[in-house]
Amino acid sequence: MTDYLVPEEPYYRGVGDEIAMYEAAYEIRMPMMLKGPTGCGKTRFVEHMAWKLGKPLITVACNEDMTASDLLGRFLLDANGTRWQDGPLTLAARFGAICYLDEVVEARQDTTVAIHPLTDNRRILPLERKGEVVKAHPDFQLVVSYNPGYQSVMKDLKQSTKQRFGALDFDYPTHDIEVEIVSHESGVDAETASKLVQIAERARNLKGHGLDEGLSTRMLVYAGSLIAKGIEPLKACRVALVRPITDDVDMRDALDAAVTTYF
Amino acid sequence: MTDYLVPEEPYYRGVGDEIAMYEAAYEIRMPMMLKGPTGCGKTRFVEHMAWKLGKPLITVACNEDMTASDLLGRFLLDANGTRWQDGPLTLAARFGAICYLDEVVEARQDTTVAIHPLTDNRRILPLERKGEVVKAHPDFQLVVSYNPGYQSVMKDLKQSTKQRFGALDFDYPTHDIEVEIVSHESGVDAETASKLVQIAERARNLKGHGLDEGLSTRMLVYAGSLIAKGIEPLKACRVALVRPITDDVDMRDALDAAVTTYF
Amino acid sequence: MTDYLVPEEPYYRGVGDEIAMYEAAYEIRMPMMLKGPTGCGKTRFVEHMAWKLGKPLITVACNEDMTASDLLGRFLLDANGTRWQDGPLTLAARFGAICYLDEVVEARQDTTVAIHPLTDNRRILPLERKGEVVKAHPDFQLVVSYNPGYQSVMKDLKQSTKQRFGALDFDYPTHDIEVEIVSHESGVDAETASKLVQIAERARNLKGHGLDEGLSTRMLVYAGSLIAKGIEPLKACRVALVRPITDDVDMRDALDAAVTTYF
Amino acid sequence: MTDYLVPEEPYYRGVGDEIAMYEAAYEIRMPMMLKGPTGCGKTRFVEHMAWKLGKPLITVACNEDMTASDLLGRFLLDANGTRWQDGPLTLAARFGAICYLDEVVEARQDTTVAIHPLTDNRRILPLERKGEVVKAHPDFQLVVSYNPGYQSVMKDLKQSTKQRFGALDFDYPTHDIEVEIVSHESGVDAETASKLVQIAERARNLKGHGLDEGLSTRMLVYAGSLIAKGIEPLKACRVALVRPITDDVDMRDALDAAVTTYF
Amino acid sequence: MTDYLVPEEPYYRGVGDEIAMYEAAYEIRMPMMLKGPTGCGKTRFVEHMAWKLGKPLITVACNEDMTASDLLGRFLLDANGTRWQDGPLTLAARFGAICYLDEVVEARQDTTVAIHPLTDNRRILPLERKGEVVKAHPDFQLVVSYNPGYQSVMKDLKQSTKQRFGALDFDYPTHDIEVEIVSHESGVDAETASKLVQIAERARNLKGHGLDEGLSTRMLVYAGSLIAKGIEPLKACRVALVRPITDDVDMRDALDAAVTTYF
Amino acid sequence: MTDYLVPEEPYYRGVGDEIAMYEAAYEIRMPMMLKGPTGCGKTRFVEHMAWKLGKPLITVACNEDMTASDLLGRFLLDANGTRWQDGPLTLAARFGAICYLDEVVEARQDTTVAIHPLTDNRRILPLERKGEVVKAHPDFQLVVSYNPGYQSVMKDLKQSTKQRFGALDFDYPTHDIEVEIVSHESGVDAETASKLVQIAERARNLKGHGLDEGLSTRMLVYAGSLIAKGIEPLKACRVALVRPITDDVDMRDALDAAVTTYF
Repeated sequence: MTDYLVPEEPYYRGVGDEIAMYEAAYEIRMPMMLKGPTGCGKTRFVEHMAWKLGKPLITVACNEDMTASDLLGRFLLDANGTRWQDGPLTLAARFGAICYLDEVVEARQDTTVAIHPLTDNRRILPLERKGEVVKAHPDFQLVVSYNPGYQSVMKDLKQSTKQRFGALDFDYPTHDIEVEIVSHESGVDAETASKLVQIAERARNLKGHGLDEGLSTRMLVYAGSLIAKGIEPLKACRVALVRPITDDVDMRDALDAAVTTYF
Repeated sequence: MTDYLVPEEPYYRGVGDEIAMYEAAYEIRMPMMLKGPTGCGKTRFVEHMAWKLGKPLITVACNEDMTASDLLGRFLLDANGTRWQDGPLTLAARFGAICYLDEVVEARQDTTVAIHPLTDNRRILPLERKGEVVKAHPDFQLVVSYNPGYQSVMKDLKQSTKQRFGALDFDYPTHDIEVEIVSHESGVDAETASKLVQIAERARNLKGHGLDEGLSTRMLVYAGSLIAKGIEPLKACRVALVRPITDDVDMRDALDAAVTTYF
Repeated sequence: MTDYLVPEEPYYRGVGDEIAMYEAAYEIRMPMMLKGPTGCGKTRFVEHMAWKLGKPLITVACNEDMTASDLLGRFLLDANGTRWQDGPLTLAARFGAICYLDEVVEARQDTTVAIHPLTDNRRILPLERKGEVVKAHPDFQLVVSYNPGYQSVMKDLKQSTKQRFGALDFDYPTHDIEVEIVSHESGVDAETASKLVQIAERARNLKGHGLDEGLSTRMLVYAGSLIAKGIEPLKACRVALVRPITDDVDMRDALDAAVTTYF
Repeated sequence: MTDYLVPEEPYYRGVGDEIAMYEAAYEIRMPMMLKGPTGCGKTRFVEHMAWKLGKPLITVACNEDMTASDLLGRFLLDANGTRWQDGPLTLAARFGAICYLDEVVEARQDTTVAIHPLTDNRRILPLERKGEVVKAHPDFQLVVSYNPGYQSVMKDLKQSTKQRFGALDFDYPTHDIEVEIVSHESGVDAETASKLVQIAERARNLKGHGLDEGLSTRMLVYAGSLIAKGIEPLKACRVALVRPITDDVDMRDALDAAVTTYF
Repeated sequence: MTDYLVPEEPYYRGVGDEIAMYEAAYEIRMPMMLKGPTGCGKTRFVEHMAWKLGKPLITVACNEDMTASDLLGRFLLDANGTRWQDGPLTLAARFGAICYLDEVVEARQDTTVAIHPLTDNRRILPLERKGEVVKAHPDFQLVVSYNPGYQSVMKDLKQSTKQRFGALDFDYPTHDIEVEIVSHESGVDAETASKLVQIAERARNLKGHGLDEGLSTRMLVYAGSLIAKGIEPLKACRVALVRPITDDVDMRDALDAAVTTYF
Repeated sequence: MTDYLVPEEPYYRGVGDEIAMYEAAYEIRMPMMLKGPTGCGKTRFVEHMAWKLGKPLITVACNEDMTASDLLGRFLLDANGTRWQDGPLTLAARFGAICYLDEVVEARQDTTVAIHPLTDNRRILPLERKGEVVKAHPDFQLVVSYNPGYQSVMKDLKQSTKQRFGALDFDYPTHDIEVEIVSHESGVDAETASKLVQIAERARNLKGHGLDEGLSTRMLVYAGSLIAKGIEPLKACRVALVRPITDDVDMRDALDAAVTTYF
């Protein structure tokens, strides 16, 4: 389990009372849902909290081809016949880790339903294929992430799943905090970082008006890192900010023009 | 089988004659269907009854990827070839447990059809893959849950399945009983619990008017527990009651305002 | 094979010449199709006939996930390699049982096509995976059930399948016969049984007018049994007759009112 | 291979030059397609021809879940590892049988495409999974059946498949011949057989006007056999002719009335 | 590999410069696509070229259920564990055969994408499941066939696949050449062969006007062979030319009439 | 790993600052997305960069049937039980190769989601089935290709995937550079190469006006190579440029005419 401890403090810049709230939620082992857009820091937050609470963290990137067995475990064939191997959720429940299901809405229903008995007062995980009922370790907690502006009509969590979680809203950081993050992570000075953040703010206003999603902080850090490596800012922004998020020629030119305003 | 005995009396606050009715149904081994909305206490009820009757309880959370083999059992590869392993339904039928299929309507038809010979006068379970016909233990009973307001058009139980069950209606508890439950489970005083229940009652009136499902008692217990841990009631309600059930900004604000009325 | 003999005479109350007709059909080994609504006694009839003819009976509940292998058999892995295991249809053909495929229309086409060579003058069952052609035992007969009012547009038997069977129509029993059955099976007196049957007759008139299917005799027996156990008739009817067949509030109230007329 | 020889002459009443034509086709090993409605004698014809030519016959009932492996063969796990087992088509090609694919249009495309190299001048069967190319035995011939009036829009043979076959049309026999067949097979006298055939002719006129398919000769034989066992003709016709082919009440009554005209 | 050498010169009657063009294409190992209608001689052409070039030929009939593993190879279970078995494409690439994928458009995309690294300057075949990268033998060449008039809207080769091939158009042979072929292959005299070709030419004009595809040369050879065996020409044409390509009564009569004009 | 080193400098003719930009991106290990039409040199570019940086290159042609296991690895059965085999992505992450996912948009979501933890600050690859978390080697970088003008509506990368990459635009080379490439690769003189490029430029203008995609440089090289082998230029262009990209008769004639203008 110590393999799953977060070794060093992950850089996380708090923006409200989310840290205190999470600590209280963990105290009563309330399963938590982190809601917010792509790249606003949900994954970083849960890593930070795992480090702060000193608990192991097991992260699973959910996807529509993931089966319940991928979470719970399966029998493997061995020299002596079949041998059971715990999946990541079982491992977390058995040994008391925080289990983080990233983008849980992408998973198939058998995956989301598998977490039900772990998220009510029973706190058990029935491994039907193995014929074992795992009682969750007292330290175990389940956390999921969820991007509300992003789900298709076809994909949503069932109400009977949603109601098992407390929920925290996340959003992009405020201007000053984001400047601080970009500067800290990429190595550019505050002035350059501020320009990058202003470009991002412009692009985020275009969400729903030709862009499906805003620029993430991670993209700003990439652009900053290229600049810090000596790449011309204009070119760095094109490669790291504009080209990845649009294939539309007009939108690309508009964003390129916005970049030119700052650099 | 003793692994499946419910060790302590699960807290259940009766609201009508459902306990007596269930006991009579069990006496004639009538398969039972518990109908009602998410989180109104169906699972807790069946745990309570299993404890009261002193019978083992095997619970299966149904889902659309579950196959008949997940219920009936399968062959596993062993050092000495294949070995049959009973699934949860077979285990229950063989050794006389109550088998509870939670949200049975989610399962595929091969799962629901598999229960037919167990729920008519034959009370047998043919394991076609094993070539065995299990005669149900005299203590065996099948119980399923079903949320009528929740099923999609595409998913419904076949009439030839429904007609094999007696059915009990469940609903959220009355005000006083729910206050008693929330206070008992979360540790807040009756006044706070009453405020939480009033918030829930308001939200439940919005079902079908912007909310797909009402607030469950479990959510109230979570909110109460956070308050008992010292979290400000307003914040506790946002995290535990409002954020989980809606992604709609207007609905969220309306619910937040409702919370402010009480705290 | 003696495992599959029906040990005691199953209670069956004949309503026409169906017993004589079936005996003649068995004499020429004509495959038979039993047509009729859910719960009108088709399964009981075939058990009765198997008992009367002194032949083993192998029943298979068909479903849309059933494969041809589930009927024919498959190779299992053994300490000494693979071993063939006969499926229920092969078993019946090999040793001369009556094989009853319940709700055959639910099965996939590979299942229904698998029965073709058994149901024409060849009376053989080619096990292609095993490389064996089983010649049906002289006692073997195939029987299927089929609910004509119930099939969806998407699911129907192919004409080339239907034409391989003789067919018998089944319906709910007449009033007096049904009273006799309910009283005999549940232990209530004839008066109470008659009231239950009258409720069923009312409900059956609503088929197609808000109810998908009528009340089955089995449900009346359940209601009677609860009454015999001391449950108030009104409550017994609600649990055993009304709640299982409708989720619609108006229909539920109408049926509850109908019950009140009699009790 | 001798297992697959047709042991006795199957009764077949020729209706044109189809026997001579088939013999010539076999002489040049032209793959043959037998076209015609359900139950008009295509299967019996190919059995007769196999008997006449003294060649083994391997029959496969095609269906939409059949895979190419079901035809070609597969590896089975054995005490000494995997062992290849020929499928029915491979067996026929290797040892010189006539291979009859009944209702070939039901099969998936990988099945129909698998026959291509066997039906052009190459006359080979590549077993890609085994890494073997089987050269067809000089006696091998492929025969398929096909019901043109019956195929759905979605299912048809590819032109590149159809063009690999010569084709013979089949239809119900003429009145006198069908009387002869029914009488010969069921044991009733010619007068009764003639009445049965007249009923069939009436029903066949309703094809496309409420009936999907006409009555087959096989059904008449069943009705005749019941009559020969002492069942009242009216009842025998209902069970063997009318009930199997329609679920429609009006059509059923019309057909019952037609029966009454004759008996 | 010598198993895959074409033992005797396959009869192929050249109609243009396609033989010289193919030889040049082979010299630069350009992958080739043979385009043209069903039965116009594409398969025969590639066999002829393989024989002429003295290279082994491995032919695969593509179909929509074929997987990449069917082309590349798979692990088989053996007495000593798993053993890799090359698929036909791997075999061809490894030992320098011409690999001919017949009707490549029928295959699933994983199959068509699997050929990409073999058809650009890399000429490699990564066997990801085996962890091996096969460098194509210098003699290896890939050839595919493709029927442009035949593809459905849903099925087409991706442009990034098409652009990897040079392409040769094929069509039915001219009158005189086709007469020569039919006479040579079936044994009928030139006059009869000419009549058969004239019938084919008439039918080919009906393509798109009631016929999906024209008559192939192969069908003419079948008709000629039946005539050479003593079958009346009229009957031979019905069985070998008309019945296989149409189920429509009017079209069948029109084609029968056309036959009568010549015989 | 040395198996995956690019042995000789792949010919790549730079057209802008893409080489310098890629080197900076590699320095900060920013995952890269190469955007552009079919056959414009994206694959060649990444091979060139791998050679220039002296890093091993592992290329995977993505397709819609590829599963996450195809990328990550799987358990194989061995004489001593199961043995894990790294997939290409795992191999690259473990030993520090550049992993190039060609046409990543073709892959299923489980494949694209599998790369998420490798493409944020964690740079890990959780092998859930094996229970191992691979920390990426410092040299590891992920590169994907993407053809924006080519994707169907149904297939697109998720924003949360796109935002993990920097992006470089690619297009066909300018006239002079393309002439240089065609001449260098095919062996024709500059004049012939220039004619071929002019034909390509004409055809590229037809993209969206009857052609789905422009002619690639690779096709020009094929045409040139045929000419260098002595094939008449007109015929070489038909086979290598025109026939492969269109099945439409009018478009084919228009392109043939364009070829005639130059040769």
